[in-house]
Amino acid sequence: MSSTTVRPSVNALATPLVEALVADAPRLRLTVSANRGEARLVDAGASALGSIEAGRRIAEICLGGLGTVTVAPAGPVAAWPFTVTVHAADPVLACLGSQYAGWSLQDEGGSSGFFALGSGPGRAAAAAEHLFEELHYRDTATQIALVLESASPPPPSVVARVAEAARVKPEDVTFIYAPTQSLAGSTQVVARVLEVALHKAHTVGFDLGAIVDGIGAAPLSPPHPDFIQAMGRTNDAIIYGGRVQLYVDADDADARGLAEALPSTTSRDHGAPFAEIFARFNGDFYAIDSHLFSPAEVVVTSVRTGASHRAGRLMPEMVARSFG
Amino acid sequence: MSSTTVRPSVNALATPLVEALVADAPRLRLTVSANRGEARLVDAGASALGSIEAGRRIAEICLGGLGTVTVAPAGPVAAWPFTVTVHAADPVLACLGSQYAGWSLQDEGGSSGFFALGSGPGRAAAAAEHLFEELHYRDTATQIALVLESASPPPPSVVARVAEAARVKPEDVTFIYAPTQSLAGSTQVVARVLEVALHKAHTVGFDLGAIVDGIGAAPLSPPHPDFIQAMGRTNDAIIYGGRVQLYVDADDADARGLAEALPSTTSRDHGAPFAEIFARFNGDFYAIDSHLFSPAEVVVTSVRTGASHRAGRLMPEMVARSFG
Amino acid sequence: MSSTTVRPSVNALATPLVEALVADAPRLRLTVSANRGEARLVDAGASALGSIEAGRRIAEICLGGLGTVTVAPAGPVAAWPFTVTVHAADPVLACLGSQYAGWSLQDEGGSSGFFALGSGPGRAAAAAEHLFEELHYRDTATQIALVLESASPPPPSVVARVAEAARVKPEDVTFIYAPTQSLAGSTQVVARVLEVALHKAHTVGFDLGAIVDGIGAAPLSPPHPDFIQAMGRTNDAIIYGGRVQLYVDADDADARGLAEALPSTTSRDHGAPFAEIFARFNGDFYAIDSHLFSPAEVVVTSVRTGASHRAGRLMPEMVARSFG
Repeated sequence: MSSTTVRPSVNALATPLVEALVADAPRLRLTVSANRGEARLVDAGASALGSIEAGRRIAEICLGGLGTVTVAPAGPVAAWPFTVTVHAADPVLACLGSQYAGWSLQDEGGSSGFFALGSGPGRAAAAAEHLFEELHYRDTATQIALVLESASPPPPSVVARVAEAARVKPEDVTFIYAPTQSLAGSTQVVARVLEVALHKAHTVGFDLGAIVDGIGAAPLSPPHPDFIQAMGRTNDAIIYGGRVQLYVDADDADARGLAEALPSTTSRDHGAPFAEIFARFNGDFYAIDSHLFSPAEVVVTSVRTGASHRAGRLMPEMVARSFG
Repeated sequence: MSSTTVRPSVNALATPLVEALVADAPRLRLTVSANRGEARLVDAGASALGSIEAGRRIAEICLGGLGTVTVAPAGPVAAWPFTVTVHAADPVLACLGSQYAGWSLQDEGGSSGFFALGSGPGRAAAAAEHLFEELHYRDTATQIALVLESASPPPPSVVARVAEAARVKPEDVTFIYAPTQSLAGSTQVVARVLEVALHKAHTVGFDLGAIVDGIGAAPLSPPHPDFIQAMGRTNDAIIYGGRVQLYVDADDADARGLAEALPSTTSRDHGAPFAEIFARFNGDFYAIDSHLFSPAEVVVTSVRTGASHRAGRLMPEMVARSFG
Repeated sequence: MSSTTVRPSVNALATPLVEALVADAPRLRLTVSANRGEARLVDAGASALGSIEAGRRIAEICLGGLGTVTVAPAGPVAAWPFTVTVHAADPVLACLGSQYAGWSLQDEGGSSGFFALGSGPGRAAAAAEHLFEELHYRDTATQIALVLESASPPPPSVVARVAEAARVKPEDVTFIYAPTQSLAGSTQVVARVLEVALHKAHTVGFDLGAIVDGIGAAPLSPPHPDFIQAMGRTNDAIIYGGRVQLYVDADDADARGLAEALPSTTSRDHGAPFAEIFARFNGDFYAIDSHLFSPAEVVVTSVRTGASHRAGRLMPEMVARSFG
C-alpha cells in the first residue's frame, strides 16, 4: 500500500454500476432527477419506494466496484435465512476507501438542517477525511458517486462542497440517497458487515496494509418506519447476526489479537437490541461503546502461518428480538 | 400501480436474456429452430436434453427480466441442500404480470390435442387474461417470448393465436418449451416459489398494489420421467420445502391476515406428497384444494409498521418422501 | 457425445473471462506480463498476492466458460460457512474436458526443475491426454488459456511445448499460475469438488456420456504457507466437506453403483486429514489410495427412473482438524 499509482479508481469502477442503476430506475422503483448544470439525484427510498435489489446494487456502488453483494437463502441466523453476503478482493480499499460512511456533510450556512454521512467512491475523490492519508489513496475521477443514508436530497451547499472537494463539476456528481427505514436503505446498511470489521480493525490499531481479503454475511433486516428501530435492526443484523472472515498477512499473535478485539462481544454494551441500548443512553449515539459496532463472530486467518483465530458468537435470539 | 406508462416492458427486458439463451444453446444442450416467417422454437427438454442452468435462465426470462434466480448450496431443506432462490424488486409485475402460467393455449380446431399453459412476458403483450386488468398493465413489444411447460412445440394454430393476441408477427415470437420431467422444466417450475405466494395473495383478495418486494427459496427437485411424479416433486419442493418473505405496504391486521392465509398448511389437503393427493382425487387436478399451492413457510413484513408475521412450517420429511 | 462438431469451444468461451481477469488485474492483485512474441503470464499468487475472487474467476476459466463458481455464506460445514459452489450444465466437458489438472508439464531438457499440472481449456486444444479420445473432443482455438498450480511461471520449453501441441503461437497462450498456498490457488482447487467426482466416475468405469448435469459445493479452505498443509486443506475441503449431486441418464443399478463408488468414504485411507495421510506414506502421493480423492457425500439422480441414490457422509470434525 505504499503507492497510489497502481490502485484502481473506485469512481471509474463504480461508474458503470451507477449508470446501470439509473437506466434500471423504473424497475427498481427509483426516481432520478437531473437538470443541466446540477448534480444528478437518485431517490432510492425517500419519496420513491425503492427495493432490496436497489439496496444490493447501491452496496456494490458503495464498494467502488471492488466487491460483490449477493442475497442467499441461508446464512448465520436460521430464523431469518435471507442473507446478505459481501466479498471484496481488496477489502480495505473497497470498504474503508469507499464504502465507509465517514464523510460528515451538513448544510453549513443553510437553513435546511440537512445532515448526512456520505459513503461510497465519491469520498475517495474528495479525500476530505484523515483516513485517506492512512490509506495513501486519493482517487482522481471525472465522475463521482456518493451515497447518503438520508431521507432528503442534499441541499445546494452540500452539492457544491462535494463537487469542489472532489474537483469535479456539480453535474458530474451522482447522489444516491435512501433513509435507513427504506428497503434499499436497510439492505445497503446490512451490507456494511465487512466494513464495520475493517473499521474496528483500524480503530484497534491493526495494520490495514496487512488485511488481504475478507468476506462477510449478515441477515437481511426487515425495514422499520421508525428511524431508531430501523437503525437498531440494521445494527443488530451485524452485531448479533453478522459473521466475517478476514485474511491477514500477520503473525499469529497479531492475528489472534485482531480476532479477539473485533467481535461485538468485546463491548460493555453487548447483550441487548441496539434500539434498547440507544434508549438507555437517551439517544446519545456517541455515548454508546464504539466497540459494539462490529460483527458477532469473526475468523481471522493468518496467510503467513495458516492458523485461523476465532472469536465472538452469534446471538440469534437477539436478532429475533430485534427483527420482531 | 395507477399508471401503465412508467412500467417497464417485460418483453424488452427479457429479450437480451432470450437472445443469450439462444446464443448459448449448444452449451445448454437446447435445440433452436427458426424458419423464415415462423416462430422461433427453443426445445429445452423435450427432444433436447437441456440442463438445470437452462431452467434457471428460463426462469429469469419468465420473470420478464425483472428478477434473479440463483442456485445456492444450502437452504430450507438440509437433506436437499441445492436451493433455487428467486428475488424480484417488483414481484407482482415479475411474477403475476409475467411468470405466472396463466394463459391456456390449446389447438383449437386442430387435431394435435396440444394443450399447454403459457407463462412469461409474452402473456403481458397479449393480456388475454382477466388478471391484466387488475394489474393495469399491458406490454407493448415488437418481440415476445412465451414459455410452455410442454413436451411438444406449439402447433400452427397456437402460434398464430399468440402472435395475433400480442400484435406481433409469428417470426417475432420465441417459444421456449420443456416438459416438467426435464432438468430445465423442473428447475423453472420450482423457481415459481415466489409466484405461487403472490398468486395465492391475489386469490385471497389481498391488494396486490401493496406488495412491494419479495424473496423466495425452495429445494431443487430431482426430475422424474413420469409426468405426475415430476409435477408432484416440483409442487412438493414449494408446498413442503418452500420459504417466502413478502414486504407489504399494509397495516398489521392485513399483513397478519395475509401471512395466515398464505402457507400450504392452510389447505385441507396438506400433509402428503402431491402425487399421492393427486391420485386420491383420481387425477382431477381441479378437485385438489387450491390453497395447497403455496410455500410451506411465509414471513410477511409490513413496511408500514415494521412488524413481521410468520406462518406455516417446513416439512422436510415430506420433501424427502417426495424426492425419494 | 457422438459428434465433436456441435460441441462448444472451451477456449473461445473462456477468452472473455481471461480478458476480464487481465483487465481487472490491479483490483484482483494480479501481475500480468506480456512481451511481444511471448506467452502472456498472469501471476495470481506467486509473487503477486492475488485474492479469493481471482481464484473464483480462475475456476470459471478452468471450466472453459461452461460453468459458474460462486461463494455462499452457508454450506455443508457449519463452522466453515463460506462455501464454493460449482455448477456446470455439461459437467463432463467443463470438468474433465477443461478443468481437470491432467496435463503433466515439465521442463524437459531444461535445468529449472519446473513441473506443474496444467488445467483449463488449453488442455482441450492440445488434447495431449488419452482422456480426450474418450471424450471425443478436441478444441480448435486461436487463443488458449492454461492454469498452473505452480509457484513459478512456465520456462520457455514448456511454453513452446504447449503452443506447439495446441497449434497456436506462444503469444496466443495465456498462462495463469498460482501456488496451492495462495488465496487464489486454494480457492480454485476447492472449486474442483465437482471435477473430482467426475474423474472418479471415469476411474470406476462409469459411462461419461450418461452424466448430464452436476452441482458441487465445498467449504472455502483457509490458505496455508506450507505446500503440504495447503494441499491437505484443499483436499480435506472436498474429501470431508464436499457435497456433489450428479444427474445421470442411467438405470438405477448403474446410478446406485456410481453413488456407492463415488464418495471418499470408500477409500481405505479415509479418516484422517490429508496431510497426515500424506506423511504416513512418507510423502509418496501415488501410494495414497486414489479413491480418497472425491467428495464426502454424493447424490446420484437417475433422470431415467427419477430415483436418487445417496452415499458417503460429511465429516465436519475432520474439516475442523484440517482447517485448524
